[in-house]
Amino acid sequence: MSEFQKTERTTITRLPKRGIYDKETIYTILDEALFCTIAYTGEEGPFQIPTGFCRIAGKIYIHGSVGSFYMREILSKKLTVSIGATLIDGIVLARSAFHHSVNYRSVVVFSTAELVTDEKELYEALEAFTEKMCPGRWNDIRQPNSKEWKATMVLSFKIEEVSAKIRVGGPKDDEEDYALDTWAGVLPLKITKQELIVDEDATHPVEVPAYLK
Amino acid sequence: MSEFQKTERTTITRLPKRGIYDKETIYTILDEALFCTIAYTGEEGPFQIPTGFCRIAGKIYIHGSVGSFYMREILSKKLTVSIGATLIDGIVLARSAFHHSVNYRSVVVFSTAELVTDEKELYEALEAFTEKMCPGRWNDIRQPNSKEWKATMVLSFKIEEVSAKIRVGGPKDDEEDYALDTWAGVLPLKITKQELIVDEDATHPVEVPAYLK
Repeated sequence: MSEFQKTERTTITRLPKRGIYDKETIYTILDEALFCTIAYTGEEGPFQIPTGFCRIAGKIYIHGSVGSFYMREILSKKLTVSIGATLIDGIVLARSAFHHSVNYRSVVVFSTAELVTDEKELYEALEAFTEKMCPGRWNDIRQPNSKEWKATMVLSFKIEEVSAKIRVGGPKDDEEDYALDTWAGVLPLKITKQELIVDEDATHPVEVPAYLK
Repeated sequence: MSEFQKTERTTITRLPKRGIYDKETIYTILDEALFCTIAYTGEEGPFQIPTGFCRIAGKIYIHGSVGSFYMREILSKKLTVSIGATLIDGIVLARSAFHHSVNYRSVVVFSTAELVTDEKELYEALEAFTEKMCPGRWNDIRQPNSKEWKATMVLSFKIEEVSAKIRVGGPKDDEEDYALDTWAGVLPLKITKQELIVDEDATHPVEVPAYLK
């Protein structure tokens, strides 16, 4: 089991026992999160953008149009960015208002953007991106053509300065409150897939593929 | 229907047709989001913290321990913060890799923290916070005592400089790709409640209240 090195800005000061530096835990959170938030300091102050992303080995990848203002800005100025991803796993229902909480898993990475130009890496990033959103999808769709490749910018961020913060388990109430007749426990939350909605612009019927069933 | 005024930093430049300044739409997104991300520029550069929050009228409220480093920092230095909240509504499955997308609703607010000291406002914020996580809960639990009030810091942020960005609907493919035999449409996603987990430290059985069923 390998751990990331703590730095001053990744050291959890509030409830430090919730701080996690284990690589596998951090990668699992990043792989499960559907979007991340890229925060940086622009000319007009702090800024943040939510965006889809994927992880391959020790790097986070984002992609967008070559015209994306924020991607060009963080790349050209070599700005430090903070990348955050958060999963909400449940609502912790305590007997007292004070001890109500949330079970969560979150990661924050500090890094700097690098432009991906290597063709193999570009291809792998776009494949990983699509497969993260919908496993099995990549081999069922039209792959990018050269015009689309030229319109797409992919940035990578090394995952080196990073920490996770996690809360799990039930409520922790004050001793005297356990006698109350208040139901206590956890209401787990989960992102679930709903019924597929077929494209209303479809020109002919297509069977739903096995990976979507 | 009232609209927020655009400013330079809330004007959506990328895909401007997705930009929304309508108050009702923005409030609905904020009320549905289980957490927000507070981004600011600290002494060591850009920083972000995910946290629970609630909205009452034109203000966002967050709360935490009086010892919270980041809350004290943004308050004492009157730092501009960027507050982001994002909902992922579905995965847009196009016929081409390039046109894959995500249906989402996101809000970004620029604001500055104010310390809430008025007792009525404090109480209302904590009640709204609890009721947002679990409607019906507030009247079923032990209310905060004076020791707990003293340990809790509540900050408010005026919602004035704000924008939302939204994508809805099915995929938009290139004309020639509609002939492909690839299933296309939307895979909707939803945060759903799972089966309740009773507190394993409970000292006696308590019936599950109606608002949790």
